[in-house]
Amino acid sequence: TSVRTTECAFRYKQIVVKKCCRYTQVWLNTQTVMQNALNPQVIQEMVSALNSAKYDDSHLVLFSSLGNVFCSGTDLHFLVSGDRRMAARQMADSIRELTKTFITFPKPIIAAVSGAAVGLGVSLLALCDVVYASDKASFHLPYSQLSQTPEGCSSFTLPLTLGLPSANELLYGGRKITAMEAYQLGLVSQVFWPTLMMQEVIPRAQNMATCSAKALEATKLLIRSHHRTKMELTNETECNLLLERWSSVDCQQAVEAYLSNEKNLSF
Amino acid sequence: TSVRTTECAFRYKQIVVKKCCRYTQVWLNTQTVMQNALNPQVIQEMVSALNSAKYDDSHLVLFSSLGNVFCSGTDLHFLVSGDRRMAARQMADSIRELTKTFITFPKPIIAAVSGAAVGLGVSLLALCDVVYASDKASFHLPYSQLSQTPEGCSSFTLPLTLGLPSANELLYGGRKITAMEAYQLGLVSQVFWPTLMMQEVIPRAQNMATCSAKALEATKLLIRSHHRTKMELTNETECNLLLERWSSVDCQQAVEAYLSNEKNLSF
Amino acid sequence: TSVRTTECAFRYKQIVVKKCCRYTQVWLNTQTVMQNALNPQVIQEMVSALNSAKYDDSHLVLFSSLGNVFCSGTDLHFLVSGDRRMAARQMADSIRELTKTFITFPKPIIAAVSGAAVGLGVSLLALCDVVYASDKASFHLPYSQLSQTPEGCSSFTLPLTLGLPSANELLYGGRKITAMEAYQLGLVSQVFWPTLMMQEVIPRAQNMATCSAKALEATKLLIRSHHRTKMELTNETECNLLLERWSSVDCQQAVEAYLSNEKNLSF
Repeated sequence: TSVRTTECAFRYKQIVVKKCCRYTQVWLNTQTVMQNALNPQVIQEMVSALNSAKYDDSHLVLFSSLGNVFCSGTDLHFLVSGDRRMAARQMADSIRELTKTFITFPKPIIAAVSGAAVGLGVSLLALCDVVYASDKASFHLPYSQLSQTPEGCSSFTLPLTLGLPSANELLYGGRKITAMEAYQLGLVSQVFWPTLMMQEVIPRAQNMATCSAKALEATKLLIRSHHRTKMELTNETECNLLLERWSSVDCQQAVEAYLSNEKNLSF
Repeated sequence: TSVRTTECAFRYKQIVVKKCCRYTQVWLNTQTVMQNALNPQVIQEMVSALNSAKYDDSHLVLFSSLGNVFCSGTDLHFLVSGDRRMAARQMADSIRELTKTFITFPKPIIAAVSGAAVGLGVSLLALCDVVYASDKASFHLPYSQLSQTPEGCSSFTLPLTLGLPSANELLYGGRKITAMEAYQLGLVSQVFWPTLMMQEVIPRAQNMATCSAKALEATKLLIRSHHRTKMELTNETECNLLLERWSSVDCQQAVEAYLSNEKNLSF
Repeated sequence: TSVRTTECAFRYKQIVVKKCCRYTQVWLNTQTVMQNALNPQVIQEMVSALNSAKYDDSHLVLFSSLGNVFCSGTDLHFLVSGDRRMAARQMADSIRELTKTFITFPKPIIAAVSGAAVGLGVSLLALCDVVYASDKASFHLPYSQLSQTPEGCSSFTLPLTLGLPSANELLYGGRKITAMEAYQLGLVSQVFWPTLMMQEVIPRAQNMATCSAKALEATKLLIRSHHRTKMELTNETECNLLLERWSSVDCQQAVEAYLSNEKNLSF
């Protein structure tokens, strides 16, 4: 595995990928201004790492982050730099591809959330299969504050998982919740003490990875088949709306106001 | 707004409507024997108020009640007065229209529940987008006791939100739950201390109303699109069954027995 | 009823059936090595008892178990005895029929879980309408440990009821949960103190049984109609996959390893 690890170290600049025994570990570790934000370059590396894990001998993927922010969501600085219409189109296309990659990924994905998850960082969790969180983690969807619509199928997955009244408070109301609240609402499978989280998660990932790859993949295919078509359609609709919103004046102003407020960028 | 407020005061006898800055507030305040019960006249005013809020400059609607009962549900006295077959038909038609109005309403509806919610009063909450409740609120669906079937799409929304085992205990078993239980089950977004509820809810409504109307409406359309067709069909089926049930002898007797028991009418 | 009770006593060897006033009580009480395990013979008796309750004057069924294990799930000893390919086919066919019988059963089924529920024993609960549990009950789906895929529509019902992240931890991760956790996740309607459980459950069943049979059946038909087609398809797909899995070498080995570990058989 040392050759593969070395190869990974050269291939990826925004993420870290490590092939472990029967599973692949992927960490976000981006060079963006907002910690672990997602722009087309970061997303391209994530899609590439997942496509590689799809065909290798991994039984599952463990997805987490380096640093104290799990994921800041869409890289808003990217959206308001250069040709904004072009940036909006590139971002919408990237999110469409990333979401599709998660929806169609055939092996279980375990997420381990150590810190703040914002926007797309929360939506992606709802596309994972099992979600572990540190007690320090937080979950926040500032979509209406940003004058934008939901991403990553969260308009479908969050109401399904949390129930409409709680999902809507997050999606419209921008309510920020703790790991314990996320657990009570069903967004998170289990919460662990911050310093112990990876000690708890790794053995669970290793244990699940000892199961038959065929059984794991058949189970995931079965579970996901019930909503697959609806989720692919939702992804298309959401990305079309995102492009429209990001290109609008009210959304551009809301993004600039969001970025100019220090509180939104520090966790 | 003073002209509009005055206009509202003349137009409505069973509800109170106030146009606030960027949102519309609607209170139930009916002249029925059971407090804030829903009969064709009350429902006609609610539909009218919602249709008006749909086309004005409101970004959202805040729905609550005056008095210590949020909503007693269907006005059972109406059902057992005069020509009962005619009353059943009028009531079923009214509920069909009210439910359809809620399902298709394009702007977010925030409900604030201060006291007891019974029957259709609970079912309507599941059609709202965000539901806040006072710690004194209670939730009760006496459908099987009344020998009737569910209304307001609750046969679809409650199992989806609460899970089948809990939803069924409410729908078949007539279990009455507290605000905290409703929160734990996902029917309510947040619970507040009774005397502080409106102090907590108003700023949240005001804050949400500052968001772009386009973003709010696009988000609601997206979230609701996933179940829109199924809910419209459910509404039709439920109202057809209600008409059949309300016209039956066993249901008529159950309603009379319910109304003759003081305990069912005092909260 | 004494004649009917006597008749039942002769007809059933693996279950106990008692016709009570307006409801039918069914207890698992099998002669299997693992307590209350489900093999084709046990399942045949359950299907027969449910078909009988479908057409008699019962308003509902109360489903529980004798002994301190609610249900050990699929009888694994049956799967690894004699002609294994034949055993796998018989078991898959039986589970298909049992699941279909639960899905299409027109009257409410209340489950009362006194002890451990494993595998199919948990999946069946998600097909019941109301689920009461003793505080001593536990819920465990060792599907991935057995290298098999989910049964009894649990690939559909558990994600719907518990949310995907929690359902997956049970379905992939084989996490064993307590009655309280099952209640918090929505799998169980209420939890009672072990020695008081039946004292709490019987009056609730009796009370629900006083309701109009027509209203109860119409309510169940309405609630179930939303997912009926999807569940019937899921049942077919799951049983085809189970046959494939149980016939595979990795699954046969996993079953033998499971049976050779004392810990998996004692509760």
